[in-house]
Amino acid sequence: MPERERIRVGIVGGSGYVGGELLRLLLSHPFVEVVTVVSRSLAGKPVTRAHPQLRGRTELKFSAPEDLKESDVLFTARPHGQTMAEMPGYLKIAERVIDLSADFRLKNPQDYPTWYGYEHPHPELLGKFVYGLPELHREEIKRARWVAVPGCTATSAIIPLWPLVQRFRVKLVVIDSKVGSSAGGAEPGPDSHHPERAGVVRSFKPTGHRHIAEIEQELGLKISFSPHAVELVRGILSTLHVFLEDEYTEKDIWQTYLQAYRDEPFVRIVKERAGLYRFPEPKIVAGTNFCDIGFEKDEHTGRLVVICAIDNLMKGAAGQAVQCFNLMCGLDEKIGLDHWGLHP
Amino acid sequence: MPERERIRVGIVGGSGYVGGELLRLLLSHPFVEVVTVVSRSLAGKPVTRAHPQLRGRTELKFSAPEDLKESDVLFTARPHGQTMAEMPGYLKIAERVIDLSADFRLKNPQDYPTWYGYEHPHPELLGKFVYGLPELHREEIKRARWVAVPGCTATSAIIPLWPLVQRFRVKLVVIDSKVGSSAGGAEPGPDSHHPERAGVVRSFKPTGHRHIAEIEQELGLKISFSPHAVELVRGILSTLHVFLEDEYTEKDIWQTYLQAYRDEPFVRIVKERAGLYRFPEPKIVAGTNFCDIGFEKDEHTGRLVVICAIDNLMKGAAGQAVQCFNLMCGLDEKIGLDHWGLHP
Amino acid sequence: MPERERIRVGIVGGSGYVGGELLRLLLSHPFVEVVTVVSRSLAGKPVTRAHPQLRGRTELKFSAPEDLKESDVLFTARPHGQTMAEMPGYLKIAERVIDLSADFRLKNPQDYPTWYGYEHPHPELLGKFVYGLPELHREEIKRARWVAVPGCTATSAIIPLWPLVQRFRVKLVVIDSKVGSSAGGAEPGPDSHHPERAGVVRSFKPTGHRHIAEIEQELGLKISFSPHAVELVRGILSTLHVFLEDEYTEKDIWQTYLQAYRDEPFVRIVKERAGLYRFPEPKIVAGTNFCDIGFEKDEHTGRLVVICAIDNLMKGAAGQAVQCFNLMCGLDEKIGLDHWGLHP
Amino acid sequence: MPERERIRVGIVGGSGYVGGELLRLLLSHPFVEVVTVVSRSLAGKPVTRAHPQLRGRTELKFSAPEDLKESDVLFTARPHGQTMAEMPGYLKIAERVIDLSADFRLKNPQDYPTWYGYEHPHPELLGKFVYGLPELHREEIKRARWVAVPGCTATSAIIPLWPLVQRFRVKLVVIDSKVGSSAGGAEPGPDSHHPERAGVVRSFKPTGHRHIAEIEQELGLKISFSPHAVELVRGILSTLHVFLEDEYTEKDIWQTYLQAYRDEPFVRIVKERAGLYRFPEPKIVAGTNFCDIGFEKDEHTGRLVVICAIDNLMKGAAGQAVQCFNLMCGLDEKIGLDHWGLHP
Repeated sequence: MPERERIRVGIVGGSGYVGGELLRLLLSHPFVEVVTVVSRSLAGKPVTRAHPQLRGRTELKFSAPEDLKESDVLFTARPHGQTMAEMPGYLKIAERVIDLSADFRLKNPQDYPTWYGYEHPHPELLGKFVYGLPELHREEIKRARWVAVPGCTATSAIIPLWPLVQRFRVKLVVIDSKVGSSAGGAEPGPDSHHPERAGVVRSFKPTGHRHIAEIEQELGLKISFSPHAVELVRGILSTLHVFLEDEYTEKDIWQTYLQAYRDEPFVRIVKERAGLYRFPEPKIVAGTNFCDIGFEKDEHTGRLVVICAIDNLMKGAAGQAVQCFNLMCGLDEKIGLDHWGLHP
Repeated sequence: MPERERIRVGIVGGSGYVGGELLRLLLSHPFVEVVTVVSRSLAGKPVTRAHPQLRGRTELKFSAPEDLKESDVLFTARPHGQTMAEMPGYLKIAERVIDLSADFRLKNPQDYPTWYGYEHPHPELLGKFVYGLPELHREEIKRARWVAVPGCTATSAIIPLWPLVQRFRVKLVVIDSKVGSSAGGAEPGPDSHHPERAGVVRSFKPTGHRHIAEIEQELGLKISFSPHAVELVRGILSTLHVFLEDEYTEKDIWQTYLQAYRDEPFVRIVKERAGLYRFPEPKIVAGTNFCDIGFEKDEHTGRLVVICAIDNLMKGAAGQAVQCFNLMCGLDEKIGLDHWGLHP
Repeated sequence: MPERERIRVGIVGGSGYVGGELLRLLLSHPFVEVVTVVSRSLAGKPVTRAHPQLRGRTELKFSAPEDLKESDVLFTARPHGQTMAEMPGYLKIAERVIDLSADFRLKNPQDYPTWYGYEHPHPELLGKFVYGLPELHREEIKRARWVAVPGCTATSAIIPLWPLVQRFRVKLVVIDSKVGSSAGGAEPGPDSHHPERAGVVRSFKPTGHRHIAEIEQELGLKISFSPHAVELVRGILSTLHVFLEDEYTEKDIWQTYLQAYRDEPFVRIVKERAGLYRFPEPKIVAGTNFCDIGFEKDEHTGRLVVICAIDNLMKGAAGQAVQCFNLMCGLDEKIGLDHWGLHP
Repeated sequence: MPERERIRVGIVGGSGYVGGELLRLLLSHPFVEVVTVVSRSLAGKPVTRAHPQLRGRTELKFSAPEDLKESDVLFTARPHGQTMAEMPGYLKIAERVIDLSADFRLKNPQDYPTWYGYEHPHPELLGKFVYGLPELHREEIKRARWVAVPGCTATSAIIPLWPLVQRFRVKLVVIDSKVGSSAGGAEPGPDSHHPERAGVVRSFKPTGHRHIAEIEQELGLKISFSPHAVELVRGILSTLHVFLEDEYTEKDIWQTYLQAYRDEPFVRIVKERAGLYRFPEPKIVAGTNFCDIGFEKDEHTGRLVVICAIDNLMKGAAGQAVQCFNLMCGLDEKIGLDHWGLHP
């Protein structure tokens, strides 16, 4: 690989699960130097305290927020609602900022009180963040200084729906997602207590989930969405029940997806005639940046069933962020993301 | 409890999971004597070889098919397609027959080639079996000699949909089910191999599932249905995404369900404001005959989300069969079914 | 069953997992009336808020501690260290007290600072509590007013070791236990956070576990003990690696166990030649009061491997407490405990 | 990286789990070209049929056994007992052979009838295979043409015990292992049927496990070993209960391990004062070639508890094989093995 100067990178919110994945990816990225990893709670402790899988990989220690160094690119990975007010400060100390919270995803300031329950303190910034989904906004991301990385279930809905919305008149969409526990973050609570969370199939938010706002923003389409917690740590499977106004065949859908995603490095169309893994499955994309899409036409009702699997911490967060990072820095977007999943 | 003569009961297909549940329930039933438990593969072996949870409970041994004794009531719990041809023989040696396979659920003989891929050898019997769902057919079951117990996912769809269909004009229904591995039966195969089945969220039959036939038969409504295998042994959670032609409020739905199921011994409406178990959850109905139903109106799209949890081996099979048995024998339908779930 | 006056029972610590199991058992006990269930945090709320599996079973509400009523028997099921100081108060308002914490299990006051890290405020009471293990102390329990129910892993060690210690000279014992997450109680914490606890095989306390104190007290034998957290909610499997001074055969061990436990209602010897469940397995005792024991002689080294499975919340806590309760009240000790496990 | 000719590699037994891991590793190895992957059952099918995680990574197809090409290095990864007779043929078509079955691990021909129940057809070859554990036999492996890769549980026992055996007089060792389901291979059976295997803590072979033979061969020490199946797909945690003749301190153990393994690229000593991952944990080594070792002295009995975690398919099979491959080919032994685990 050609020599080039390393890009200096900082991470805020470094002790969470997304922070851990960012570290895992960026420490192996050939063109990156991680200069600061901020964690309020673990400042001064080695990053392996929170991320034991990196033992032997790094001697980095967490820094206090006030010790955040200037950097070329800053990743902010704090829980929703906490980055909003701090953002102007971050924009001063980093040339580029990639935010992984929900705080800058929505363009319409009114959406924050509607979906998140609070006014946005910096509505003037909302229009300046690019929604960091390369499959839809690659060229904008390349030119962007500030990027807001999509939500995990939103990613699993928008990528498979986008080509359909472009080509067909969509009558109705129901998105039924099955989500692993890591999507809830690293903070313990009654709902994440193992005896309560283990073995569940839980409709924890049948209606009104916040990711609806960004899905509808990107697709320009009203959708019905219900996530379910299932026994899984990493991964999302979204089943999209799609009703089209137009007549269609499975071949039409094949063509639609191939045309849209043939050259996408992280989208795979998975629809096979035999084998156990005929359709997408979150197990085998765990740890990878893939977004696997499959589909089947229901000849009985005309419904199109689309199935999408991602790793919520990768294509649903840190992997997607690094993909954006590569694009923003003029690099091959696959660098640092060449992980293949495990099976079994 | 008053003295009465015990009802002599036989079980065919006794070494499967449904057979095991029938045994667990019937051995503790105060008015039942189990006279034969047939298993081709384990004839001569103690029933605890297949059902180790019953150690110390019974000394019964499996019998060969040819040793099946006459009985008052015969439960047939063999895999689909195997009971069809044998049924005339069974009808001769038992006064009443309760079949737990799919072989006698469908009224229209044409449905068998359409959904199951084979002609039914005894179409003349189909009209004579009562579909064993007490919530819909209690009075018929009481008078029935022959009952066909509903499929597990069908039960989780029909019970919550039935009152809605009675009261509202239903525009569209998508049923997205999440199913435990025991629903696949006791026979090992590549798809049930633990390393492949563990941790999956698998869309194994996105369209065309056979239970659609009986759901539509009972509801007189075209439905879209997609089951998913999730990491769970026992249990089904069905999420029903319902779109009504009529305007409605959550209060209307409350009233609809209360009116329909207020007096049902095994249907609970579960919809709470607080707590981790605000909606139905298969974990806490495991081992019980309950069918828990919850719901929420999506004010964003008008969709009604209905959530239904059952234990596929109990209300989805053996428990429902014993409930039918009680009704057929003039007993309190709750006898032998007073199990409360476990938590955590 | 003969008519008799119901025994009035109170529960302190009613919102925990052991409290939930006590409720499940006692609400179905034919001779019990539950008069108060105390929970500080949920006072005024229905008990089904914490124990959703009991929906439809009871309308009881949690009471504040100050509303604890007098009762014939009081079960105290609070976390370790909290009942010690409160016990004199409890002894005044109940004729009999059954404590499920560790606070009154150890006879030697010195053991509390050694193993639990604090002085016992009421050492004078320690000698007056009977260690509530019916297999060892049935007659004392029958006469007892106050009983301290054994720890869960201690139960899984003492029951299988006791007959060996009586008959053989034991050279060395290593107890390697595998424990479900419910043994840690209902209070969430970083170690019980699902993404961290799921899928672990964790040596969380390789040496120095507190239950060693009561195991050694009961057996009069120095033991080595290491518990491991495994992916499981309910259940303990303890593997006891036993080295005897004496020569022995498997037949000797059979005889030893049969002689000791032939008439025990809740001890089963499980050692079969065929099948998947040849040895004890926590899965199939979940929800039951059974203690299953199996063994095999290692002809290579002379080691005796003893395998013991219990449900930590049942034979390891609430079930054992109800067994003691029955004995203390002159009832058949099996009443209210006739649950058979589930399989699969 | 410097240019060099690619080493031509073949794989026999390519459709199993170990075959899949070999493919995952070797397809990303910069100096390897995979020329044939043999699978009897899937000949002609794409390798992604068995290994769906490699979709997009390779277009390779499985070959029939008769189409096995000559290669520089051949990996044989068939079930135990099947490679023995075929080996002479393999030795002719490949310069170097790395066998992952048990068929060439034991030096003493008599051990095969004793531990495996059959005579070895080629005892003359046994002495010529090097036991492929780099931590013990690095120099021999470098010079070896033929290597027999250790068993998975054997690896988790020998690596942590070896330095202790070198320095101390060991009185007694009990190895209690907890093993994931992938260790049983890709072939379904009754014991791997998900409803039976899920949630177990199963003592499936309390005594007499075959890996004892190779552990004792390598350590020259009699050991007691009991493996347990736990709910886990990948991974082994072995708890070694070690009793030494000599006095020792924890510091002595630290020194012993540091001295032995300080420079080992894949051995990490994990023993921390704080955090959830104070000791080794299979979860965070899944997918990696690490062997994590921790320990604690039991001051109560003098016992030394040693804890070892590996991924059974990596350091326990394919990863170890590739490490040997690198050594045999004069390459840096870490090449192709720089995977960091996932957390959570």
